[in-house]
Parts: sequence; structure tokens; C-alpha cells
Amino acid sequence: MSVNRAAATLVDVPRGLAGVVVTDTEIGDVRGIEGFYHYRQYSAVELAQTRSFEDVWHLLVHGELPDTVRSAAFAAETAALRRLPEGVRTALPAIAAAGVSSGPLAGMRTALSLLGAAKGFRPVYDIDADERRRDTIVAAAAVPTLLTALHRLGEGLEPVEPREDLSYAANYLYMLTGSEPEPRQARAIEQYLISTIDHGFNASTFTARVITSTGADVAACLVGAVGALSGPLHGGAPSRALDTLDAIGTPDRIDPWIRERVLAGERIMGFGHAIYRTEDPRSRMLRDIAQGFGGPRVAFAVEVERQVEAILAELKPGRELHTNVEFYAGVVMELCGLPREMFTPTFAAGRVVGWSANVLEQAEDSKIIRPVARYVGPGAPVAVPTTV
Amino acid sequence: MSVNRAAATLVDVPRGLAGVVVTDTEIGDVRGIEGFYHYRQYSAVELAQTRSFEDVWHLLVHGELPDTVRSAAFAAETAALRRLPEGVRTALPAIAAAGVSSGPLAGMRTALSLLGAAKGFRPVYDIDADERRRDTIVAAAAVPTLLTALHRLGEGLEPVEPREDLSYAANYLYMLTGSEPEPRQARAIEQYLISTIDHGFNASTFTARVITSTGADVAACLVGAVGALSGPLHGGAPSRALDTLDAIGTPDRIDPWIRERVLAGERIMGFGHAIYRTEDPRSRMLRDIAQGFGGPRVAFAVEVERQVEAILAELKPGRELHTNVEFYAGVVMELCGLPREMFTPTFAAGRVVGWSANVLEQAEDSKIIRPVARYVGPGAPVAVPTTV
Repeated sequence: MSVNRAAATLVDVPRGLAGVVVTDTEIGDVRGIEGFYHYRQYSAVELAQTRSFEDVWHLLVHGELPDTVRSAAFAAETAALRRLPEGVRTALPAIAAAGVSSGPLAGMRTALSLLGAAKGFRPVYDIDADERRRDTIVAAAAVPTLLTALHRLGEGLEPVEPREDLSYAANYLYMLTGSEPEPRQARAIEQYLISTIDHGFNASTFTARVITSTGADVAACLVGAVGALSGPLHGGAPSRALDTLDAIGTPDRIDPWIRERVLAGERIMGFGHAIYRTEDPRSRMLRDIAQGFGGPRVAFAVEVERQVEAILAELKPGRELHTNVEFYAGVVMELCGLPREMFTPTFAAGRVVGWSANVLEQAEDSKIIRPVARYVGPGAPVAVPTTV
Repeated sequence: MSVNRAAATLVDVPRGLAGVVVTDTEIGDVRGIEGFYHYRQYSAVELAQTRSFEDVWHLLVHGELPDTVRSAAFAAETAALRRLPEGVRTALPAIAAAGVSSGPLAGMRTALSLLGAAKGFRPVYDIDADERRRDTIVAAAAVPTLLTALHRLGEGLEPVEPREDLSYAANYLYMLTGSEPEPRQARAIEQYLISTIDHGFNASTFTARVITSTGADVAACLVGAVGALSGPLHGGAPSRALDTLDAIGTPDRIDPWIRERVLAGERIMGFGHAIYRTEDPRSRMLRDIAQGFGGPRVAFAVEVERQVEAILAELKPGRELHTNVEFYAGVVMELCGLPREMFTPTFAAGRVVGWSANVLEQAEDSKIIRPVARYVGPGAPVAVPTTV
């Protein structure tokens, strides 16, 4: 093993590496006090409102927004990469069949790992920056095809082949349902996907960077990140907020239902965020999108939000508790016809682009990320007992 | 997303988290000055010399060496878990076919991910300690079956079904070749596997712990670790030391070959370790094992070692440069009939047990491992340009 560590000077830090600066980044940041987050120098919400998913993907992995010509070229380049290699396609039924109880992210983990091998991904330090970027684009372009194929196979349906003439978001919905989505649905999902590409540092992003720092291939890095995202302490669950709406049922039940839970000290799913001290900017954007659709479900969600905020302000004064991204993300995905089990995979599909940017940035650093552990067990050596 | 981070107080630490204590551990430690490493309270080398792989596995995941009765029970329990679920078996040809250019660890990554899903692994925080341990044992017991099946399929051969009446190590060699190994070969590989179960903290172990800290399932944690191990900066390559032996060719060429490379500033594969200031204890043990086999190849390796150490002492005085674990590991694996492309996977098979112990220990901690990044890009927000 190559161990480059010098004789150890131990550095004690807060538990869980909280607040420990592990890297500099130019990818983006979250400003909790202001209720603002950005990708490179642009407001993420403004990007979602004005640009295509492919343009923002280009911003993340190429470092700049494309002009009109490059925008079209990048969209065409990524669209051509949607189709899966035959060797991956043939394995998908087995992966779908295995994934029933471990959930869709376990299937994504396996399929993405297989895709990387089938595409011959090589260690990031053995290839140049263009080849690395190409590998991330190959992976991110294929993820919607993998996810929708696994979902359909799990439902007993044939996968739908990708279409190159549709946008990333429209093609995603098309492969899921087999029908071309309404433009406003495709655009709503596109805006959601853009808004979830990145959101500051988190455990999956960090996992991708640790694996990258060993020089492993792009699939190894992304698969590790998918694994971390599948952890309940990391991944959100936009479906939980919808479960809350369902459990409340009707407007007249909002007040007693919420009050009972807040007084019992339970957390209301879809509310509260530890970084934002104001409204979550993603939540605000997604509410606007939902209200653009209108209808009783959206009106009910808005009423729940209004009453929950009022009750929380009354029962927990001084705490700024607002809806988080999960609340309206669930509403929007439902409006676009996504089944609940696809909510987290859809989030993951967008996040692959954020992980990609982090992999590419980390690969420019040649230093492995390797902290230490402090041995606190019994003194060694104790003589090994013989089995009698 | 659930983000528990409090308003950030940033903590600056050495690059790559070098020396940063991320956790306490009771699993083991490396003492570089003494040339000693241990699993829990026992010398790892003494364990390799006196115990079975299964006993040391029990020590790692149950926290203590088994007595005679439990030793037999654990061996039987793990042997019964070697057979793969049908859903994994049917996918192996596709995984083997995809893995040609990305290497055997990419295949292991995919197959282990699939196995976890097929076995219905659940998030570690949703199950109790016994269930978590069971999942790690299910994974580690099946890894030799996965690795040997993928290798044989890659060679155009049918996989060999595992046998429950053989030890872990003997069954591993049996599944690889289809013939029962000589007892001394099985024992040599067993000792090698024991010696590589753990070796202080490293990037793959850390990856497993980061993913565990999100609450993901055991397969997600192990798959991430395999990914990190596949990185050239992490994983060793016992085959490289054999390549050195081959390149030198004959005893008379040792001196000029080595001198030329040392003077050119090249690293000699198989020599040097940043932690050990003395001989690597694994190297010493593996040399003894190799010398037990005897023969011209071993004599040549010993002569290369002797001359390299003499030349390094002459040309780089004051530096303690000895063979590292790769040098004699390669020789021993060759003596046991392992093809070179199986050297790193064999290492990984043993290391799965070490990762397992780390996953189980980390799962007792409820704190997510999540450092931060410092944004150093251009100031935001800049207005998003419109595409014209």
C-alpha cells in the first residue's frame, strides 16, 4: 500500500468533522442568513428560472455558461449519450429484480457501476481533464435512462428508449411514462432538477471527493456518492411531505393535526432547515411553479404551509420555521406525474451533475483525503489464546 | 434535505485531512516506529500465524476471538453464505463482460452492490447491531464467490460452485481453479488474507465510515470502499513487485538494474513504506512463508531484496528502506497459483472484513461525517446572461 502519511501529529476537530474545511471550491455556496445559494457566480434560482438543465450542467462541468452555439452543441452531445450500451441493457432486468426491497437508489448504484465498467472508465489520474469531464457527462447523460428503465422493469413494463430530440427533462418524463410530457410539466421538472444540482457541501459530495482523491474512476466516485445519498441521515425524502398532506387529508383537519404533533415534539416533514434562517429559496421557487399549475392539491398545500407556519410561530416563537425544499418538491413532482418512489431518484439524477463538478475539481488536487483514527482499545499485544 | 449543521465556525486543518482525528477506534492500530500492527489487542502477525481467517473475522466483527465451539459455528455459518442468490448469478456474465477494461475491482463493485440489493440490505440505522453484523457477514462470505466467478467468466470458463466443507481460503483457491489446493497453499493464502484485513486508517476505510454515517445500507458502505481501493493512490499492486522481478530477470542483472533506477530517482516497486521505520512486519511474515515453499523464484526474490537494501543503504544512507507488503505478497500469491490480475481482488477480499468492522463501529455513532468547503470563486450573484 502506498502510505504517504508523515509521522503523525494528531489534530483534534469537532465530531463528524463539523465545520472542518476539507477543500476550497469554486462550484458554489449556500448563504443561510440571506436565503441564497449559487452555482459558481450565478444565483441557482435565477439559473433555474432562465436556463435549460443542459446549460447549467455545462456551467457546472465546463465552468461557464455556454453561448447559443455551444448550448446547442452540448445539448446534442449529451442527448446522444442517453442510449445504454447493450451490455448494461441486458443486465437491467436482474438489477431491477434484485432492487425490490433495497429501493431505487440501490439499483442506481449497481447500474451506474456497471455502466462505468462497460464504458471503460479509467482512473481519474490516468486520464486528462477532458477525458474526465467526458466520463462524468457519459454517466450523467445515462442516469435518466437507467433510472426510468429500472423503474419500468420493476413495474413489469418494457423500458422506453431515449429520444434525442427532447430536452433532458422532457426525455426523462417521456422514458418514464412512454408519452411526451406537457411542456409545462417538462419545464417544471427541469427547474426542479436545476435547483437540486448542488447545495453546498454534504456527505455524498464529500464521499465523491474522497474516492476521487484516491484516483479511482468516475463511476467509483459517483457510485459512492449514490451510496451516501441513500442514507436516511443524508438524503431527503420529498415523498414524506406528501405523506403529511395525505395524512392531514382535508383543510379543516390541518389545525388539530399539526398542533397535536408539534405539542408532542414531533417534527413536521417538509418544514425546517438548519442552514436557512429565512425561507428556503428552493421552496419559494417551487411554490411559484406549483401555483402556476393551480388546482385544489396546490391550494391545500399552500393552506397547510400557511397554517403550519402560524402554529409554529405561536408554539415555537423566535424560531424561523419555514417549508424546506422537500415540501413543494413533492407537490411539483406529483403535478408532473412522477410516482413517489421516483422522487428521490429524480433528485439524485440532478445531483449527479453536482457530484460531477466536485469530482472534476477534486481531480485537479493530487492529495489523497485521508484522516486518521485514534486507537482507544485495550493495550496490545496480548498473547493470542490457543483454541483448546 | 436534512442539514443538521449549525451556523458555521470554520476549522482549518492540514491538506487532505492529514493527521486529523476523525474517530476513535477499538479495531486496531499501526505502530510505525516499532514495526508492529494489531487487530484489537492482538498482534496481527501472531493471529495470522496461529489462527484461521474465520477466527480473525470473528474477532473483527464480534469483537473477540471465538472459543472452539463458536469457532466451528462461525465457520459453518459463513460457509453456508458462500452461495450466491440466483438473481446475482444470472447477472454475473454481463458484469464480467463489462469489466474487461475497468478491471476486476469495477466488477466487484457492481456485483457487491447487486448482492446487497438482492439480499435486501436495509439502512444501518433502521436495523439493530446483530442485523448489521449479519449483513456484513453475508457480504464478506460471498465476495470470494463473486470474485472467482467474475474471473472465470472473464476467462471464458464456467464459475465453480463454492464448497462448504473447505475453509474460506481453501474454498477461494478451489473456486478459482476448480481443484482443491494443496494444504500449504491454502494456509499461505489464509495467512496473507489475515494479514491484510486491516492496517490502520486509510481512504477506503474512511469512505466506508463516511457512507455508514449517513445511515446507508452495508452494501453502499462496502461498495464505496471498493471504489476508493480501486484508486491508484490508495490501492497497492502486489503484481507490480513481480513485474520488477521479471524485469530484472536474472541475479547478475540485479545490481545494474537497481542502481540505474535509484540513480534516476525512480521508485523501486515493493520497497519503502511511509509509516514503518523498520521492516514491515507483514513483509517479514510473508518472506518466511515464501521461504517455506523454497525454489529458485523465492531465492531470486530474497537476493533482489538483499541487493536492493544494500544499494539503497549505500545510495540513500540514513533512509530506512525495506521491502513492503507488496513484495513478498506477490511472491506468495504466485506460489499459490493466483494469476496476477487476482492479486488486488484477493487483497480486497480480506479487506472487506476490516471494512466490515469499521462499518459496525461507525454505525454505533449517530453523527454524520460532513466537513465543509470554502467557496473561493468569483463573488455572487452576477446576473445570468441571456442566450442570444
